[in-house]
Order: sequence, then C-alpha cells, then structure tokens
Amino acid sequence: MSINQRRILVINPNSNQAVTEGISEALDGLRVAGGAEIVCQTLQSGPYGVESQKDVDSVALPLRQMVEEQSNFDAYVIACYSDPGLYICREATKKPVFGIQECAVLTSLAMSDRFGVIAIASASIKRHLRYLRQIGLQGHLAGERALNMTVAETASGEGTLSKMIAIAHKLKEEDGAESIILGCAGMARHRSALEAELSIPVIDPTQAAVTLALGAVLLSSS
Amino acid sequence: MSINQRRILVINPNSNQAVTEGISEALDGLRVAGGAEIVCQTLQSGPYGVESQKDVDSVALPLRQMVEEQSNFDAYVIACYSDPGLYICREATKKPVFGIQECAVLTSLAMSDRFGVIAIASASIKRHLRYLRQIGLQGHLAGERALNMTVAETASGEGTLSKMIAIAHKLKEEDGAESIILGCAGMARHRSALEAELSIPVIDPTQAAVTLALGAVLLSSS
Amino acid sequence: MSINQRRILVINPNSNQAVTEGISEALDGLRVAGGAEIVCQTLQSGPYGVESQKDVDSVALPLRQMVEEQSNFDAYVIACYSDPGLYICREATKKPVFGIQECAVLTSLAMSDRFGVIAIASASIKRHLRYLRQIGLQGHLAGERALNMTVAETASGEGTLSKMIAIAHKLKEEDGAESIILGCAGMARHRSALEAELSIPVIDPTQAAVTLALGAVLLSSS
Amino acid sequence: MSINQRRILVINPNSNQAVTEGISEALDGLRVAGGAEIVCQTLQSGPYGVESQKDVDSVALPLRQMVEEQSNFDAYVIACYSDPGLYICREATKKPVFGIQECAVLTSLAMSDRFGVIAIASASIKRHLRYLRQIGLQGHLAGERALNMTVAETASGEGTLSKMIAIAHKLKEEDGAESIILGCAGMARHRSALEAELSIPVIDPTQAAVTLALGAVLLSSS
Amino acid sequence: MSINQRRILVINPNSNQAVTEGISEALDGLRVAGGAEIVCQTLQSGPYGVESQKDVDSVALPLRQMVEEQSNFDAYVIACYSDPGLYICREATKKPVFGIQECAVLTSLAMSDRFGVIAIASASIKRHLRYLRQIGLQGHLAGERALNMTVAETASGEGTLSKMIAIAHKLKEEDGAESIILGCAGMARHRSALEAELSIPVIDPTQAAVTLALGAVLLSSS
Amino acid sequence: MSINQRRILVINPNSNQAVTEGISEALDGLRVAGGAEIVCQTLQSGPYGVESQKDVDSVALPLRQMVEEQSNFDAYVIACYSDPGLYICREATKKPVFGIQECAVLTSLAMSDRFGVIAIASASIKRHLRYLRQIGLQGHLAGERALNMTVAETASGEGTLSKMIAIAHKLKEEDGAESIILGCAGMARHRSALEAELSIPVIDPTQAAVTLALGAVLLSSS
Repeated sequence: MSINQRRILVINPNSNQAVTEGISEALDGLRVAGGAEIVCQTLQSGPYGVESQKDVDSVALPLRQMVEEQSNFDAYVIACYSDPGLYICREATKKPVFGIQECAVLTSLAMSDRFGVIAIASASIKRHLRYLRQIGLQGHLAGERALNMTVAETASGEGTLSKMIAIAHKLKEEDGAESIILGCAGMARHRSALEAELSIPVIDPTQAAVTLALGAVLLSSS
Repeated sequence: MSINQRRILVINPNSNQAVTEGISEALDGLRVAGGAEIVCQTLQSGPYGVESQKDVDSVALPLRQMVEEQSNFDAYVIACYSDPGLYICREATKKPVFGIQECAVLTSLAMSDRFGVIAIASASIKRHLRYLRQIGLQGHLAGERALNMTVAETASGEGTLSKMIAIAHKLKEEDGAESIILGCAGMARHRSALEAELSIPVIDPTQAAVTLALGAVLLSSS
Repeated sequence: MSINQRRILVINPNSNQAVTEGISEALDGLRVAGGAEIVCQTLQSGPYGVESQKDVDSVALPLRQMVEEQSNFDAYVIACYSDPGLYICREATKKPVFGIQECAVLTSLAMSDRFGVIAIASASIKRHLRYLRQIGLQGHLAGERALNMTVAETASGEGTLSKMIAIAHKLKEEDGAESIILGCAGMARHRSALEAELSIPVIDPTQAAVTLALGAVLLSSS
Repeated sequence: MSINQRRILVINPNSNQAVTEGISEALDGLRVAGGAEIVCQTLQSGPYGVESQKDVDSVALPLRQMVEEQSNFDAYVIACYSDPGLYICREATKKPVFGIQECAVLTSLAMSDRFGVIAIASASIKRHLRYLRQIGLQGHLAGERALNMTVAETASGEGTLSKMIAIAHKLKEEDGAESIILGCAGMARHRSALEAELSIPVIDPTQAAVTLALGAVLLSSS
Repeated sequence: MSINQRRILVINPNSNQAVTEGISEALDGLRVAGGAEIVCQTLQSGPYGVESQKDVDSVALPLRQMVEEQSNFDAYVIACYSDPGLYICREATKKPVFGIQECAVLTSLAMSDRFGVIAIASASIKRHLRYLRQIGLQGHLAGERALNMTVAETASGEGTLSKMIAIAHKLKEEDGAESIILGCAGMARHRSALEAELSIPVIDPTQAAVTLALGAVLLSSS
Repeated sequence: MSINQRRILVINPNSNQAVTEGISEALDGLRVAGGAEIVCQTLQSGPYGVESQKDVDSVALPLRQMVEEQSNFDAYVIACYSDPGLYICREATKKPVFGIQECAVLTSLAMSDRFGVIAIASASIKRHLRYLRQIGLQGHLAGERALNMTVAETASGEGTLSKMIAIAHKLKEEDGAESIILGCAGMARHRSALEAELSIPVIDPTQAAVTLALGAVLLSSS
C-alpha cells in the first residue's frame, strides 16, 4: 500500500472472533483500490456478546485503551450497536470516532424519514431508546422489535433470515418504517436478502459507519 | 473503467459552470481508483444562483427531467444547499437521490451534537430553517449566520475566507456550534482552511452527500 | 359592488372545473353582504388532480404567475390540500397568501386539541406529514387515513360520504381525533353531513382559509 | 336584523367598561351587513384588570354563568389574553367558545412562522408561556416582552404607542419575530399604526377570535 | 410536639371526608417521630368528587383561602390529581405548594422512564393530558386508562383492586409503562397490592407530594 | 436502631473523603428519629474528582460492585452529578437506585418551571446536557454555567460562595432560571446562603435524591 494510505480501525467490542470476521467480510464492498485500509479487530477482553448494561459499561475503558495504543489509524469505528465507550474514546483522540448505531440512524435518514430497528433481544430495546433520545433522533423511530436470539445465533443461525423478514415486515407495515436498521453488528450477511425482500433500504450499521469514516479520511487534508 | 463501475451523478442546479467545476474539484478526494465514477453536470436552464424561493421551485421539474433522462447512474446528488426538487426526483427513480443539506446535517451529527451553518445570504436562512424542521433535525441547529455575498462571489471572491472565519467563530463561540456546515455548494474550496482555523469539523455538503452516495453504490448488491 | 369592496382570489390548482365549482359553492356561506368578493378560478395548466409530488411541484410557478397577473385582489387562497407553491406565491406579493392545509389545521386547533385527516389517497399521507412537520404542528395530529379515491371521484362519487363516515369514526374512536379535517378541496359538500354524524367539528380547508382571508381583508387598514 | 342572523357574544372579563368599548370599536370592521351580530359585554363582577392568577381564576365561574344564561348566541369569545375560564365555558355549551390568545397565536401562524408578544406586565409572561405550552404551540414563540403598564393605561395612555413600537422592534430584530401579537384585549386601537411601522403582520387577539367565530357561525348548518 | 416541628398541610379539595381519611392513613409511613406533622383537611365547600372542569375551577379560590388562613404551615399539598388551584395558591404564599399530579409524575421519572396512569373516569383523561403538556412532561406518558368509577366507589368499592390490576397490566404490557401512577388521591390503599402484582413501581400521588414536601421542610433553614 | 429501620447507602464515587464528609453533613436534616439510617461511603478506587468522561466511565463497574456487596440497604444514591453507573447499578439490584442529577432536576420541577445549573467546570456542561436529553428533561433547562474550579476547591475554597452567587444571578436574570441546581455533590454547604441571596429555590442534588430515597423506603411494604 501507499505510505499515505488512510487506515480505519473497526473494533468489535465482543470477544467472538466469528462476529469480527463477519463484520470484516461485510466491509469488502468498501475496500476499493485507492481507498482506505479497513482493519477489523476483536476486543479480546470483551464479553462474548454485549447484551446487558454491564457488558456495555465493561468495555468502555478497554476500548479507549485500544484507541490510545493504536494511534496510527485515521479513524475509528466501534462496531457494537449500543455504541459502548463512544464518548470516552472521542476524549482520547483527535481522530474521528464513529458509533455504528448513530451512523446507522443518520444514514437511514438520508434515505427515509422513519426507520425501524431489528434488535437481537428485547432487553436491549430500552437501552437503545435511551441512547436514541440522548442523540436527539428518537422522533424518527418507527419502532424497534426483537429477534430474541443471541449475538452468536444471529450471526450463524439457520432460521435467522426468515425471522428477520417476519419482523421487518411488521416494522414496515404495522409501525410505518420506511427503512430498516440491523440492530447488531452481526446481522450484516443478511442485509441484501432482506432489502430485496422488503423493497425499502436496509442498513447495516457497521457499513454505515465505515462509509462515513471513509469519507472523513479521504477528504481529510492532514 | 470496469463495465461494472458504479456511477454517481452530481447535478449543480444553477447555471454557473464555475460553481460546477469547483464542486467537481472538491470531490477529487472521493475519486479513488476502485470507487465510483463521479460526474458533475450543470443544469443549463437553472438560474445563475439559487437564491429565492422562485429559484428553488423553478429547478424542480428540470432536475427531475435530468434524473429521468440519465437513468444509467447508480445514485444522484442534488448539489444545492436548498435541496431543490429532492422529493420529485426521488419519485422519478428507484435509485437513491441525496440532498446536500440533508446529508451535511446528518454527517455533522456523526461528529458533533450541534452544528452551525454559514449561509450566503440572510434571505435564505428562513427557508433553510423551514426545511430543517421538515426533516425533523432543527433541534441540533446551534445557529445560522449569513455572509451576505452572492453565490458567484463566494466561489471566487478574495475576501470570502476571512469573512467565513469571522462568522464561523461567532457560530462556535456565541452560538455553541460544535461543527460548521458550509451552507452553499460553492464554498468547498475553503473547507480545509476553515477547519484548520476553527479546530472543529467543517463539512462541505456536497462532499457529505457524495460520501453517502459512494457507500450506497459500493454496497449495493444490484 | 362598492369601489372599496375587498376581493379574495381562490385558486384551484387542478384543472378540474367541477372541483372549482364545488369549492365556490362551499364558500357561499362566507359571501355575505358588505363582506368581500370571493372569486374562484381554475389553474388551466394544472393536472386534473394534484396527486403526486410532480403534480405539486408543477403548479408552483403557474400559481405564482396567476398571483402576479391578478394583482388587484386583497388576499389569495391556494385551494389544494398540499399547499403547493405557497412560499413562492408569498414571495411574489405583499398581500396575504393562505394555504388551505395550514389554515385547516390552525382552525381545528381553535376548537380541539388533536385533529384527524381524511386523505384521498394513501400516497399523499407522507407528503402531508412532511408538510405538517415543516409548519411545526405535527404534535397535534391524531392520525390521517385515506379514502383511496381520485379527486374526481371524491367530488362526485355516490359512495363517498359513507366511506368518509367510516374513516372519520376510526379517526375519532381509534386515533383520538377531536376534530376532522377534510384533506382535499373537493370534499366540501360532505362537511355538514359528516359533522352531524360525528358530533365533533369537521373542517373544510378552503372554508377555513377563506375565513382567515376574510378577517384579514376586512380588518386591513390599507 | 333577520331572524336567522347569527350572533356572537364577546365577553370582557374585566369590569372596565372603557376596555369593553375599545374592544367593540376594534370589531367594527367585522360587522358587515350580512354577517353576524357581534355583541360585547362586560363581566360586571370581574376585577378592574386581569393581572394575577387570582384574577384569572376568579372569573372562571362567572364567565361560565354568563355563557349559560345567554344561551341564544351562536358563538362566544372570551376577550382576555389569559384565556380565563375557556375550558369551563366549553364544558357548559355545545356552541364554539374561542379564547383570544389561542386564536391570536393560530392566526399569526397562518401568516408567519414565529410570533412575538407585547405583554402589559412582566408578571403575566410566565402565565402566558405556561398556557402556550399547554396548547402545544410554544415552539413558535420568538419572544414575549412587557410594556409594564396597567390594562387601563394601555387602553388610554398617551405614550403607549411609542412604547409598543420600541418593544415590537426588539421582538422583530432581536428575537426574530415575523409577526406581532398584542398581548391584551385593550391594545387594539394601536394595531394599524404598529403594523404600518413594523412592516410585519400585527394581530389583535379579539379580532382574530371574532374572525374565527364569524367563520364558524356563517358556515354552521344548524 | 417540639415548638420547632415542621408542619405540612394536605388539603383534600373534595368534600368527601372518607377520602380525606384514606389519604391520611396512606401517609402514616411518612409520619416518623422526628419528622414533620402531617395534617389532612377536607375542603368543606368542595364538590363531593372533582370530576369536571367546573369542579376543578370551583375549588381554586377556596383552596387559596385555606392556604392564606392557615399560614402557620411550612408546606402545602393539594391532594387532587387535577392539581386544582396550584398556581393561585403558590401566588398566595412564599411556602412551597405541591400538586400531587406533578409530584407523582416527577417521582415516577426517578424510577422509570415512562409512566402509565390509572384514571377514575375517561372524561378526566383529556384534562390530565392538557396539564401534563402544560408542565412539559407529556413525552414520558406511556398511556392513561380509566376505571370509569366515581371517586367514592374507588375508595371503598369491593371490585376496585381487580379492575385496577387489569388496567395496570394493559398500561404495562400494551402501552409500555415502566411505572404506574394512581390517578386519584383516593386509590392509595391499593398501592402496595398493585405493586406486588405488577412488579414495577406504583406511585400514590399524595405520598409522592408529601415526600417532596417533607424533604423541603426538613432541609429548610428558615 | 430498630431491627426494621430502613437504610440508605449514599456513595461518593470520587475518592476525596472530605467530599464524602461534606455530603454526609448536608444530609443531617434528613436524619430524623424514626426515619432511615443514611450511610455515606467513599468509592476508594474512584478518581479524586469526577471531571472527564474517563472518570465517569471508570467508576461504573466499581459502583456496581459496591451495590452488590452491600446488599443489606433498602435504597442507593450515587452522589455525583454526572450520575455515573446509574443503569449498571439498577441492573444489579431490585432496590431503587437514585442518581442525584436526575433527582435534582425532578425536584426543581416540583417548585419551578425552568432550572439553572452551576457546574464546576465548563468541560462538564456538554456531558450534562447530553444526559439531560437522555432523560428527556432538557426542555426545562434555562442554562448551565461553570465556576471553573476543581471539585476540591469547590468544597473548601474561600471564594466559592461569592462566585456561586455571581453565576446564580446570571442564571436567574439573564437565562430565566426560576430555581438553581448545585451541579456537584460538593457544593452543599453553600445551599442555604445561596437561596437566601437569590430568593428562588436552590437545590442540592444529594439532598434531593436522599429525600426521594427516604420516601421510597418509608413507604415500601416489603
């Protein structure tokens, strides 16, 4: 690669290496010649899935440490839909740090007015809503509905896509969603199939965040 | 280029060819080898600058016609900060159509909580605010202040940067803006200098929209 | 008429003369001795019904031209529920220009807290909601439901009233509407019957706008 | 008058007969031959001016009694900017009852996006804001500023107009008001002069309410 | 009691002495040895139940008179869920005056994000919503549903608890309430049983208000 | 003490023992006979002051551990104005856990409509605003202004009160605050003096939270 090539670090805060690999694969479309190097890493000390508030809070400091130690990247993406540690990481670097929930929601709004979210577990929905209100975008939420599967099941399970389709239809037809956000970094492989089925935009949050990171690093003058 | 290369059409709704060239130049950073072809065109029938509501409304149908006639693009960007004709163009194609004000605001929110806008003319501010409320994002506006120059002056004028710096400082220090949006497609050449001076993100709206378009076309499976 | 008599121009932006006549008839109650002359005209170049965003945008400039050419009126009313061309017309004259959706919503709020809207077609609802948010009054919307008939059918069709009654009951009982707005200029003839059936205020938008125009011209000192 | 002529009762809740006469005079423009009879009455038991919360609450039951006793009117207007007793009166009759603050605000929104209010006394501003929030329209308030005069002084005082002009300019230039509402039923005589000076709409609340009442009674089928 | 003991006056605005006694009994938990004296009184001139807007408005002046006459208390609580006369009483004393609806809602927000309300009668719901909007807290309402019983029935009726449980389950499961507010001062005796059944916080509004009053008087330095 | 006496644990998340002692002293007014035992503890592993996002995030897990280990309390209060670890602690126990910022804001709203906040450092203001938006109460903020002192200086410094008075006057007169919240657990000793000077309610957040905790434990049936 060129010595000037921009580099983006995508961190999976859970310790499930298969999820990291799925994330990385989903980013292949953004790995174009002349673009940025997109590196995906696993937070080894993270929980196997980020499911509770304890999981979210427990990864904040380790994420900051990763950002501080790997300072030779031009942008960072925290690849968990709860956007754990986002502000503590931003405090640690002058480079842009993107949260995938925030970026997914913003990207959905460039293509639709109201978005629906497919969550993995019901228990996460209240936490997501709280965060959505914190970033001042809750007025655009059509609804959030849960698969009630584990992160691991979602990434690998056989019946995942059909469950996602059923839920996405409810979000679209009952809740009025005009776009669908995959509420977990591990659902990326089903994005295209879901979009083909629904006929409205389906957004993978890590893809959304890396797109914004790509723009930021390619346009940066420094 | 590859026969599969994605193509993005950026339309400048005013008839000032120099503005179109400035827009195109500002997009060079996003023209990477394996990315998308980014084509910038001038709406020949447009007004010399889009300054009044009449200007905005008068370009809606011609923009739609351009989108319909040039159907071999994968995404469209309307490069005027008033987002003229956005909905009529979206109605005309299944491809994504991006408005630069909308994309600039959304991009600013991935990097900051409250944005300030540098408008060209005071007369545009009320129109911008109305639109911002329409897209449900007015709660994040720190303030909008005007240069009170013409579109042509902004693109070429000598004293433009120093005026922009003065206004941006007011937006930052008095209004609490944490990022600055350039409220006209013709201010792009000053983005880097302004960002260096302000030490907060400065967003060129066309760059923001083309970044989102780039992500959409690179990730599209069709 | 007196040389000082005030005059209000009501423009039907669609080219369906029967709709214009229905509008005019519905305004008879406001044509009182000593009041204002209320003139209803058809935009000959308009579409047969304003149903799409293209229809809305296509009438903006012709409406402005009518307002400019007929400058000897004291107030103008644009009699289409999408309020097409409202801002471009306001830019063209110092006389007040009223949009019927805006006036209907405001009038409903003088008599109730939350209104429901009977739309002609589902496809219009998103456009109406966007506009409602633009004018900052979306918080008062109980719901909007569609007849899914054409403008022409609504004005003349046999079964229109019974369909309107069924939808209005849903707006009232399921959505909590405390008043009903007829979401099309062509539904006026059914207003009284619907109000008698529902026992809550039913507002014809053109009547609402002409009432406000009447107040403005009678109280004007110029 | 015709036996079918509609009748509107305007009640001044303070016991200052001069204020009632000023209100009545300001309504002459709406007393057209074929229109409605507009009757203005003084609440004899009211305070000399409605200035405190006690004043507001003390007139609620007497206002209801007036509405109940004078049931042969077709609409009622409560002519005090605090809209005292509005809901208790609405509970007492099936005829429409209009509050002048509510109607003034709604009317201002048909002509502008953000309104400023000239209050008589600073002490009323918080009460007005509370009410504005209750009716869900506070988002449109540019600002409210006080003359700090009594109701009686406002109606008769020599220097009132010049003070009003000074305050209205602040509302327009500093607060961004696009229209001005006279925040007291007793300021009506200065409306035209103020509007001529400011070049933006100036709204007298009683005129606004009686206009809406006029539309309601003329269009009523009962 | 100590000559320095703080005293709180709780006023039941309806004339039903049994309700006052029920309120007093529900406050026993807050009557601790070193705390404040908590006195509950009945507004003898009040209606037998506060159910209509007339009931609400009719007690405002008598409540103020009670507050003025009994000036040797350190804080006042108006024990009716419509918070009648709250502002007129606050105007009459420098001591804090608490409304039970306001305090119940605020207390629920310290323990949950969205609350549901059990109203006695459907007719009160609109009035409660209006007030909730006035105090700027409507965004946290999950829903309000009515028992459709009288105040007297609620306090004494046999089947009250089972009806309350059924409604509270709907508020929790269908409306998403994370806490339940008893929307009447006379439901206190059922609080514990309901909380045990629902497994989410159940708030008695008078207990909530007296808790805040207790803090205010114990911490006051005067 | 009685074997049934309720117990409240107040945790100071910073390791400054003097701050803990100041907090405890400020709670003496709430330590009444027959009430609850109020125990104040220092988080030994906490930073000397909670000033950055890193400080906030670093105490979350240790706070949870304290709550889990000391399970024989009936309620918990986290005594830092950033409400660190609030949700992770709530997840760890069925007992109520109160955050002092949340409780201070809620308590201020029982006595006023708009509150002002005295922060210790400017750098905290954005974090506080973000949290205020998360809990959906930002609409009531009049303003927040900083002393720009350290936590330690605030608790002990000589000139603190006079600086607080100056800032509180700006919050009241320029920003329209009707009550003042002390934006740090270490300012409690100045509450009474500030309230006497300002003549509007001044709220110490820890006192506010312990008041709510006191009500919760005294009224609890378990």
